[in-house]
Amino acid sequence: MTELGGDGLPPGFRAAGVAAGIKESGSPDIGVMVCDAPEATSAARFTASGTQAPPVLLCRERARLGALRAIVVNSGNANAATGRPGYENAAKMQGMGALVAGVKEDQVAVCSTGVIGVPLPMHQVTQGIVAASHGLAADGDAAFSTAIQTTDAFEKRARLQVTLPSGTVTITGQAKGAGMIQPGFATLLVFAQTDAQLSPETADLLLGVCVKRSFSRVSVDGQLSTNDTVILQCSGASGVAIEPETEDELRFGEALDALMRQLALLVIRDGEGARRVGRVVVRGGEATSVEAVARAVANSPLVKTALYGGDPNWGRIIQAVGAAMPGTAPLPVDVSIEGVQVCARGGFVPHDAAALTEAVARDEVEYEIGLPGEGAETEVFFSDLGHEYVTINADYTT
Amino acid sequence: MTELGGDGLPPGFRAAGVAAGIKESGSPDIGVMVCDAPEATSAARFTASGTQAPPVLLCRERARLGALRAIVVNSGNANAATGRPGYENAAKMQGMGALVAGVKEDQVAVCSTGVIGVPLPMHQVTQGIVAASHGLAADGDAAFSTAIQTTDAFEKRARLQVTLPSGTVTITGQAKGAGMIQPGFATLLVFAQTDAQLSPETADLLLGVCVKRSFSRVSVDGQLSTNDTVILQCSGASGVAIEPETEDELRFGEALDALMRQLALLVIRDGEGARRVGRVVVRGGEATSVEAVARAVANSPLVKTALYGGDPNWGRIIQAVGAAMPGTAPLPVDVSIEGVQVCARGGFVPHDAAALTEAVARDEVEYEIGLPGEGAETEVFFSDLGHEYVTINADYTT
Repeated sequence: MTELGGDGLPPGFRAAGVAAGIKESGSPDIGVMVCDAPEATSAARFTASGTQAPPVLLCRERARLGALRAIVVNSGNANAATGRPGYENAAKMQGMGALVAGVKEDQVAVCSTGVIGVPLPMHQVTQGIVAASHGLAADGDAAFSTAIQTTDAFEKRARLQVTLPSGTVTITGQAKGAGMIQPGFATLLVFAQTDAQLSPETADLLLGVCVKRSFSRVSVDGQLSTNDTVILQCSGASGVAIEPETEDELRFGEALDALMRQLALLVIRDGEGARRVGRVVVRGGEATSVEAVARAVANSPLVKTALYGGDPNWGRIIQAVGAAMPGTAPLPVDVSIEGVQVCARGGFVPHDAAALTEAVARDEVEYEIGLPGEGAETEVFFSDLGHEYVTINADYTT
Repeated sequence: MTELGGDGLPPGFRAAGVAAGIKESGSPDIGVMVCDAPEATSAARFTASGTQAPPVLLCRERARLGALRAIVVNSGNANAATGRPGYENAAKMQGMGALVAGVKEDQVAVCSTGVIGVPLPMHQVTQGIVAASHGLAADGDAAFSTAIQTTDAFEKRARLQVTLPSGTVTITGQAKGAGMIQPGFATLLVFAQTDAQLSPETADLLLGVCVKRSFSRVSVDGQLSTNDTVILQCSGASGVAIEPETEDELRFGEALDALMRQLALLVIRDGEGARRVGRVVVRGGEATSVEAVARAVANSPLVKTALYGGDPNWGRIIQAVGAAMPGTAPLPVDVSIEGVQVCARGGFVPHDAAALTEAVARDEVEYEIGLPGEGAETEVFFSDLGHEYVTINADYTT
C-alpha cells in the first residue's frame, strides 16, 4: 500500500469544484464528480436521522445506489427541513447532474451541507452545476474537495495505490467536515473513488465494513447530522476485478479501510479548537456494553473538557462508565490512561501522578477501560471540547 | 401554600454544618441532620449509575431507608471509586452518625460529594462529625446547607408551610449542586424534612413522584453522577397524618412537588456561566419518543451553545430531534420557539426573524416540539453551555 501525494483521480473519474455564490464568502460551493465508465458500480451509506434532509431522502428513493455515475454536491446550505420544495430542489439538482454528466437521473446522487431550514438558492445552484461541468478534469479532486467544505480548517483528502495479486489499483477519497469547532451539525460527506472493478454487492459489503470501522467510530460532539452521506464509486478502469473471498478482496478491503480511517482521523483533528484527540478502547464480555461505555466516554462533556485542559481527572471516566451501565453497581471496572493504571475493579490504584499529568498533555490520549468478561472490544476516537467550540457554535447563523 | 423566609427546620429536626478541613479552602464540609422523633419515617432515591459510590452502596445495603433518623454528609470528596476501603470508610461514617445521634446504625444515611478516586481523610471526617454533633440546632439548616455544597454559586434552600384539611405542616429542603459550571459530575444531593406524619410507603410514593417531576426533569450536562442522593424525612411532630388517597395526601404531594421543582430550578440556574435556562416541551403519540427527543434536545451541545449565544439557529433542534428518532425519516416534526413557529411537518415556516432573535435572548427560552400522534407529553429544563463550563471543567483537579 503506497500513499500518493498530489492530485489526480483514478482512471475513469473526472471532478470539478466552483464558486456559485451560495456561500456569502464567495468560496467554492458546488462540486461535481463523474465516473465515465458505463459499467460503474457504487455503494452508499446515509445518516440514520429521523429528520434526513431532502437530498438524502432523494438518494434513497430515486437513485440506483449500486450504479451511481455522478454526484452533485453543494455546500453552504443543507437543504434540510425544507419540506416538499426542498425535495423538488434536490430532484432538480439530480436532473441537472444527469444532463451535464450524460447519464440517467437515477445514476446521480445529490448531497448538500450547510445551514438547515433555508431554501436552496436554485439560480446559483444551476449556474454552479453548469460551470462545474465545463471544468471536469482527471485532477479535479482538489477543486472538488474544496467545494464540499463548509468551515473545515483544512482539506481532507487521501490517495492510495495498492498492489493486489491481480494487479495494481488506486483509491482516492475526499471528506468534508466536522471538526469539533465545525457547526453545521458535524455533517459528514465522504466520497471515494477507485479504478478497481467491484460488483455492487462487493462494493456495498466493503463500504459497510469500512464505514463501521472509521466514520462510525469517531465522535465530534455526539450529534447525528441530517445530511451525512458516504459514497464509494468504482470505475473498473484498471481491469482488476475484486472477486468475493479472494486475497484481492482482503487486500483491497484493507486499503479502503486505511483510507477511510485516515479521513476519519482528519475529521477529528480538524478545527482550531481541537487541541487533542482522545481514543477510548473498551474491552469486556458484551458487545452492547463495550459500545455504550465507549460512546458515553467519547461524548461526555466532562471527559472532553478534561482532555482539552490536559486534566488527569480520571473520576470523569468512572462517572461516564457508570452512567452508561445503570443498575450494575458495584461494577468492577479497570481504567488505564496512556498505560498508567488508575483504577482496578472499581477502586483507585496508587499511581505516579506526575507521569499521568504528563501523559494527558500529549496530542493523543488513550483511555483503556476493562469491563467484566472477555471477547468484546471496541474503540472510539473523539475530539476535545474547548472554548473555540463554544465561541463558534454560540454564534453561527447570526 | 406559603413560602417561608429565613431559617428553621420543621419540629422534630436539628441540623449542623462545620468546616472539618476536608476542603483545602477551609469551607464547611461536614453536615449532620438528625430527626429526634423515634417513629420517624423516610424515603430515598439514588443514582442509577453502575459506578455508584460506596456511600450510595452502603445506604442501599445497610440502611433502613423507610426509617432514617440521621444523615451524615461530607463535601470535598465523593468517596467514589475508592473500592473496599471506601466502603469501610462509609461504614465508619454511618457508625459515627449513629453514635452522635443516639440511633441505630441502620437508621443513618451517609452521603459524599466532591472529587472522585481519592481516599476520604478520615481523621478530618471524624473530627467534623463530632464537632457538628455539638452544634445541632433547630435552625441549623443554613449551616447544613452550606456544608453540603462544593462549588455552588449560591445556596439552594426552600421552606414551605401548607395548610391541609387535617392541619398545618411545614416542609423544608436543602439541595446541593450542579449548575452547568459545577464540576464533580453534577452531583446532586437533596434533603427534605417535614413534620407531617407519613407511613414509609406514602413517603416513598410521594418522593418517587416528586423526584420524577423535578430532579429527573432537569439536565445540566447529561451526565449521571456516582453519588446522587435524595432523602425525605418525616418527623410526624405536627400530629397531622397524611393518609393514602385523601385530600391531605393530594395537597401535601403538591407542596412537596413545588418544593422539589423550586430546588431543581435553582440547580439549573446555578453557576456564573448559566446565562439562560431552556425548557423543552415535547408532545406526540408515544411516551418513549417524546422522552428521547426531549433528552436529545436538552443534552445537545449544539442546542446548548446556541442557547448560550442567544442564537436563533433552530436547525439544531431539527438535528437533535432526528438523531433521537433514527429510522423514521421523513418525520413530520413541528417546532416553535417562544411561540414563534419555525417548522411545520418537517419543513420551515416563514416567520418573523427579528421576533425570534429577540425571543432567544430572553432569560428563559421555551422550545415546543410536536411529533406525530397525541396523548404523550414531557418537559425537560436545561442549562446552556458556555465558556465558564469549559474553563472550570478543563481545570478542576489540577
